[in-house]
This record gives sequence, C-alpha cells and structure tokens, in this order.
Amino acid sequence: MVAETPPARHDDLHAAFVNCTLKRSPEISHTHGLMKRSIALMQSQGVSVDQIRLADHDVADGVYPDMREHGWEFDEWVDLWPRIRDADILVVGTPIWLGEPSSVLRRFIERLYSMSGELAENGQYVYYGKTAGVLVTGNEDGVKHSAMSTLYSLQHIGYTIPPAADAGWIGEVGPGPSYLDEGSGGPQNDFTNRNVTFMTWNLLHLARMLKDAGGIPAYGNQPERWRRGERWGYSANPEYR
Amino acid sequence: MVAETPPARHDDLHAAFVNCTLKRSPEISHTHGLMKRSIALMQSQGVSVDQIRLADHDVADGVYPDMREHGWEFDEWVDLWPRIRDADILVVGTPIWLGEPSSVLRRFIERLYSMSGELAENGQYVYYGKTAGVLVTGNEDGVKHSAMSTLYSLQHIGYTIPPAADAGWIGEVGPGPSYLDEGSGGPQNDFTNRNVTFMTWNLLHLARMLKDAGGIPAYGNQPERWRRGERWGYSANPEYR
Amino acid sequence: MVAETPPARHDDLHAAFVNCTLKRSPEISHTHGLMKRSIALMQSQGVSVDQIRLADHDVADGVYPDMREHGWEFDEWVDLWPRIRDADILVVGTPIWLGEPSSVLRRFIERLYSMSGELAENGQYVYYGKTAGVLVTGNEDGVKHSAMSTLYSLQHIGYTIPPAADAGWIGEVGPGPSYLDEGSGGPQNDFTNRNVTFMTWNLLHLARMLKDAGGIPAYGNQPERWRRGERWGYSANPEYR
Amino acid sequence: MVAETPPARHDDLHAAFVNCTLKRSPEISHTHGLMKRSIALMQSQGVSVDQIRLADHDVADGVYPDMREHGWEFDEWVDLWPRIRDADILVVGTPIWLGEPSSVLRRFIERLYSMSGELAENGQYVYYGKTAGVLVTGNEDGVKHSAMSTLYSLQHIGYTIPPAADAGWIGEVGPGPSYLDEGSGGPQNDFTNRNVTFMTWNLLHLARMLKDAGGIPAYGNQPERWRRGERWGYSANPEYR
Repeated sequence: MVAETPPARHDDLHAAFVNCTLKRSPEISHTHGLMKRSIALMQSQGVSVDQIRLADHDVADGVYPDMREHGWEFDEWVDLWPRIRDADILVVGTPIWLGEPSSVLRRFIERLYSMSGELAENGQYVYYGKTAGVLVTGNEDGVKHSAMSTLYSLQHIGYTIPPAADAGWIGEVGPGPSYLDEGSGGPQNDFTNRNVTFMTWNLLHLARMLKDAGGIPAYGNQPERWRRGERWGYSANPEYR
Repeated sequence: MVAETPPARHDDLHAAFVNCTLKRSPEISHTHGLMKRSIALMQSQGVSVDQIRLADHDVADGVYPDMREHGWEFDEWVDLWPRIRDADILVVGTPIWLGEPSSVLRRFIERLYSMSGELAENGQYVYYGKTAGVLVTGNEDGVKHSAMSTLYSLQHIGYTIPPAADAGWIGEVGPGPSYLDEGSGGPQNDFTNRNVTFMTWNLLHLARMLKDAGGIPAYGNQPERWRRGERWGYSANPEYR
Repeated sequence: MVAETPPARHDDLHAAFVNCTLKRSPEISHTHGLMKRSIALMQSQGVSVDQIRLADHDVADGVYPDMREHGWEFDEWVDLWPRIRDADILVVGTPIWLGEPSSVLRRFIERLYSMSGELAENGQYVYYGKTAGVLVTGNEDGVKHSAMSTLYSLQHIGYTIPPAADAGWIGEVGPGPSYLDEGSGGPQNDFTNRNVTFMTWNLLHLARMLKDAGGIPAYGNQPERWRRGERWGYSANPEYR
Repeated sequence: MVAETPPARHDDLHAAFVNCTLKRSPEISHTHGLMKRSIALMQSQGVSVDQIRLADHDVADGVYPDMREHGWEFDEWVDLWPRIRDADILVVGTPIWLGEPSSVLRRFIERLYSMSGELAENGQYVYYGKTAGVLVTGNEDGVKHSAMSTLYSLQHIGYTIPPAADAGWIGEVGPGPSYLDEGSGGPQNDFTNRNVTFMTWNLLHLARMLKDAGGIPAYGNQPERWRRGERWGYSANPEYR
C-alpha cells in the first residue's frame, strides 16, 4: 500500500544540521546550499531544526569532552555538545577536498567520539536511539568516499543509519562550478534532488520509529553491564546447528 | 530501565549469514569461526539462520540479475538470490587482504546491486525494511576499512544499519596467528566478543522494530513515483527559516 | 629548463595494461576506451605494450601462486604472471561499482599479493624497480577512492608510484552516459586528457630512471636479510638530535 | 648483487617530519615515538631533519596560501611552508581516531593542496621531485586505511611514493596500551621495525635518484604548457596496435 500523506506527524522531532565547510560566515557555503533543501523539507513537517556551522566556533582539537582542562584556552565544543545530544536526527554536511571530507568534519567526529564515555540512563552509549545522514558537495569526485567515512563513524558510535542516508552533488570530473554557482546544474540535478528527498524522509521515518519505541531496547548493548559480566546469551563456546 | 530478559521474541525472524572467504569448503575459514558466534546467539533466540559460503558457489561476475543471459555458462546467483531476499537480517563476513575486504565480498555486493531494479510491491527498493551488519577477521589490520566499505554499500542500496553493526578481530600488527589458530587469543578477545554481542542484539532489535512496523513507511522513498513527478513536499526553491 | 623533445628514449621499456572490467570480450569496455589513450602514447614512444583483459581469463580466487594446487581445476594466473612480472610499468584499469573498484581488480591485487613470497635475485620483493598507475571510469563518483585503494596496494607490495599516477573520468553525479557513449563528453574532457598524459609521462620518466639505475638499490629493503639479523643502521634505541 | 655498505651518500638531503598528533607539546606523542626511529636512521646517514609538530602551531583552516588574507587573525602556515617546500623527503606521522587519520593531518593535506598553484621554475607542480612516506600509530585498527588516504593525497599533488612507504603499529584489536606505554610491545615489534627500516631506506634511495637526476624530467607534466596547447604526443583519437 502506498501512503498519499505522511504516515505520521514529526513535529516533536529535533534535528541538528552540522555544516563542516572550511569557510567561516559570511562566506558562501555550497554545502549549506545543499543542506538547506533537506532543512526546508524537515521544517515543512514541523521538525525543529538547529543549524551549526562548525567553522564559526572555536572548537579545540582533541578527544576529551572539554579541552580547556587539557591546556586549551577556549573550547566552544562544551556549548555545542548539548545541541547535538538533544537532537533526534543528525545531518552532517561536508565539502570534498582531495577526495576526502574536510578536516573540520574529522574534528567534529573526534569530538563526538570524545563523548563516548557519557552513557545514557539505561546504560547505552548516548547516541543510541538517534538517526544520522550525510550530505556532500564538491566539484570533482568523492561523494561516496566522504559519505562512507562519515556514516561509518556515526554508526560505530551508536547512530542508526536508515536506507540511502547519503546524498551529494559533484559536477563532471575536474574543476568546474560549485553547487551554488550560476549554471552549475547542481540545484536542478534530478538524481541529487531525489537522493536528498529519500534521505530526509528515511531519517524522519526511522526517527519516528525509534522515538515511539523509546529508543533501542536496552538489552545486549550496555558496556558497563558487559564489563560486570552480563552476556545476554552470548557464548564463547557456541554450539550451533 | 534495564531489561533482564529479551524485550521481545525473535523466533519469526530469518537471517542470512554470507561468508566471503576466498577459501572453498572444506578448508577452515577463520571468518566462519567468528561468524558462528553471532549465528549461535541468533539461533538461541529462535531466529532461523541460513548460511551461505559464497566461494562454494559458481557465482558469475557482473551486474545483471542472471549472467547466463550475458554469455556466462553458469550463474548460481540465481539460486542464492531468494535466500538473500527473504532474510530480515543480513550479516556479511569477510577476511582482510591488503587492508581490504575480499574480492568475493565485492562480487557479492555487485550482485546485490544488480538486483536494484527489482522493487517491492510498495515501490521501495527491495532491501528496505531489512537490517545488516558485518564481521571481519584478519591477522594484521583493516577491520574498520573493510566494515566501512561494506556497510556503506549496504545502506546505500536500502538496508538499515543499526548501532555498532561491525565487529572483528585482528592480532597485533604484522603476520601472526589467525582467529581459529591455537593461541591466537581471538576467541577469547573481550573487545571482539562484546562487539559481536552488541552487533547481534542491535540487529535483532532493529529487525523486530522494522518487522512489527511492516517495514519503513512507503512515503518519500519510491523511485518510480519520483520519476513520475511525486515530490512529497521537497522543493527545489526552499524557503526556510 | 624545459625540454622540447622527450628527454630520453623509452623503446626498451615493457608495459602491462590490465583491464579489470567485469565484462568479457567482445563486450565494449569503457575502461578500455580510456586505457587506450595511455597505451597509444606509450606505443608512440616505442614502448612494447602487453594488454590483459582479466575477465577473459579463468583466474582462480585465492592467495597462492597456483590455485590448482589448492583444489581449483583451472588457474590461468599461472600463464598471466610472467607477463606482469616482466613489465617495467603496470597500468591497472577499473570501472567503479558502488564507489569501489571492481571485484575483478581486487582479485587481481590478491593474486599479485600471492606472489610476494617470490624474491628477486638481490633479495628484494619482485615488484621493486617497477612503476605503476591506475585509470578509472564510471558515470557517477568514485575515481579517487578507487585510485586510492589500488595505488596503496601497489606501493605496499613494491611498486614505485610516480607523481599524479591516477586519472579517470566520471560524468556529473548520477546515472548517465558512460565514457564511450555518444555525447558523454568523456573523450573530450580536458581534465581527464591532461591527467592521462601526465600519468603516462611520469610513468615513463620513473621507469627510465629506475631501469637505468638497475632498480632500487638493494640496501635496507631485503626481507630475508632482515630476518637473518641485518639492520642497516636501524636502531630500536635511537639517540637522535 | 647485494651492497654491504650504503650505495651512496645522503648527507646533502633534507627531510621534513610532520607529526599530526592532536596533542600539543609537552604531552607525550606516541606517533613521535615511532617517527623518531626513522629520524634517527636518516640522521645516522647525515640527512638534515626538520621536525614539525603541527598542533603546536596556529595553522588556519582553509585552502589558500595565507588565510590571513581571508579573515583569519593568524596563520602560521606561512612560516611552515618554506620548511616543507625545501625538503627532499616528507614523512607524515598520524595517530588513528575511529579508523581514520587525525583531523590535524587532513588540515595539513588541505594546506599542502592550497599551494598547488605555486609552480616550480620548470613549470611542474612544486612537489615534483620529492618523495614521501607515512607513519601511523594507534591501539586498535586503521594503519592501512590511514596510510592509503595520506599517500594518495601526496602522490596526487606530486610526490613520488617509493615501495613500502608506509609503516605503523597497532596492538591487538580493542583498547590497550599505546606505542610508548610500558609493555605495549610496540617498540619491540619486529614487523613494525622492519617496515620503518624499509620505508626509510626506500625514501633515501628514491630521493638520491631524483636529486641526482635534477628531479623528474620536465616533459609531459606541466599544467601551464598543457593549458597553452602542448600535448607531448597525446592524441584524443589514438590509433594503436
């Protein structure tokens, strides 16, 4: 059966869109140009969207929750963290440089990782029960490689990745116009537009499902309980058929 | 709240475990040695598990559903396909060669991709509503790279990736014993055992959730409807806040 | 100073071009369409070029020099190997599937790796003193990822990688014409043409240099001598400034 | 024939070792612990070694030669650049975070890339004629993936990559001691020690060869000459055998 209207309401959901462009405001970010397509669709469904342009914040390098305790004079990560933690949906945007996501994206991932000691009340890692996707822009090549690296990190720390959770735009191989440049063809690209739509709806569907279920069941996935000896049926000497 | 017993039954679920070792039976597959840990845990919960060792089958190279129509004399993929299609859960196992997953794994992914023209009744790609994870063994390095590449492909074609959907084992850098070799330390490795457990339970939880929901809502993610002009609220000229 | 004519003769050099398309002859290989540009340039300099389309040969899966000794009925690798071994220059071509090089390419790399026990007379790995590059075609995305993976493997086993040793062509993101398709723009793409030219000349320059020098000096890089205790000045307790 | 003494002198060579640890001095860098093995071997051959710990410098994000012209208050890259440019050999060191090289390494690569407009007198990119390698440390997994990404970028912009130009150390999969930690086994690891030695000597051999040859011949690889129409025998309509 095919739904003609959205199968549920989504106006209780919170999404964080983190733009990992190397450029600070007010420079034009082509990555933002793509991200706002997904943002607008979420907003049209009542989702509250929080936007962070990481390069506008003095986020320290490192893998601790607060780098000011490790010799840095500043660390705006401390202020940004609650905005990430409280979002049901995370969408990361990145430009491509030499086929790779930006250094700003890697810094963001390192800081997400730095919070992995923080556990939820039910003992799961704090990213459990949330969904994530990635948007990539460039003018040459590297959408899939950038998405691969980013989505891997996000699922590894606890996000659920819905189907087709990556979308992006690049032009024909070689230098050329960027996404928002006149005549780039990016904003009109049917493939990119379709993928942004699918990604956005799949994030909404999974976020809805996870929120309604109260997250992922707290059974078989709590590090402290494992450490204390709980095994949830796992055997190191399995008999199996 | 923390559950002391499994939060649901899972005995109506089907799982396919596809081992992409380069070795044919009856040679020992270390990758299988790791996979059977997850298999046993699923079986203990009543999941019906189907095991495929791809190298034992004459699967053709190519990106069409039946390569016998493209000049190949054989193509056992045709027989294997229904076993993949009917599984709620897919777990792919791979050894590492030069830091990469095996060529057999890539062939498997290419053949999964070859079926992407096949749509479900609701218009979604046929992998929607299913979950997937990956298990990796080697004796040197490359678990994460292999998982990254594999999980990316699986989500891209439609699988949902639950949290921490990868686990693996490697010894200290350099040549050394493989997983099942005497004294490897692999079967006793606490980190690997924990990750296999978490992956297995998270696959079960998501598969349960998706099955109970009748899959992922068929709204905003059907290629034919997009092609015919449906946009589900997506705008190429977004106004957003 | 800028040379107006080639700085040396290259007509004593041998090159192997290995096409890792999934398609068997006589199907059209777009990857071959790109490879022949580099082939023609080498031939114009008198280089003898040997072309192998791997999918046309029954090469077994595995990591031993002759898989017929491991239960396979056939293994044409045994015949192909001398053609790889005797080439000063190796150029690998691959299509892109789901952002990755083909399974045929991975099988090729696995078989190259299977020969790493074979040492040259001077004790070096057999690939020392040779140069390698990679050519990639697709219609979507993944040139750099495919090149990255391929070049890494090749340098790791002993090839020298000259500057800019990768070139490729993809169209704008999404499905579209392949390289040799009418109107693809591929054969006319200035960026691709330039990169193929640079790669080809850089392979020739390095091959010339290495051949004239009698390869890479056999000092500090022979596995058997290391195993027997030679250290060539390396210290595990370095004093350094 | 096997040399018993170094086949050449290397005391006119300059090497830059760039440590991309996230940690600032005086914190212990395990990556440095590995790098100093290669440094000491080079110094024993008379090579002048320049060491840069990137995190100790206020290097701006971005892809321009001097980010102070783009709104940044500081950019120590301007001072570091000549030290990179003047080195015959570049060795990059990186820790692993979530299977990837550090964000500091990506920033370093982005800044190298930002200089690609700067051409040598002979019209080649400025990195031509130099050699590069990579050293990686972690305690879990990701040496090859990190090396792959790093070496790809370096060859793409113009460095020559000698055989086996990557070495690294990780312990058994999972958390554990880092390289310099008591009892890690890292400094004693025979495989790592061998690879560091081979990498170091291969860098020296190629650097020697390139320096003696006056770099890579300036024929077939100059972007401005291509732009002005020079083709060096390349044909877009090749006839070939």
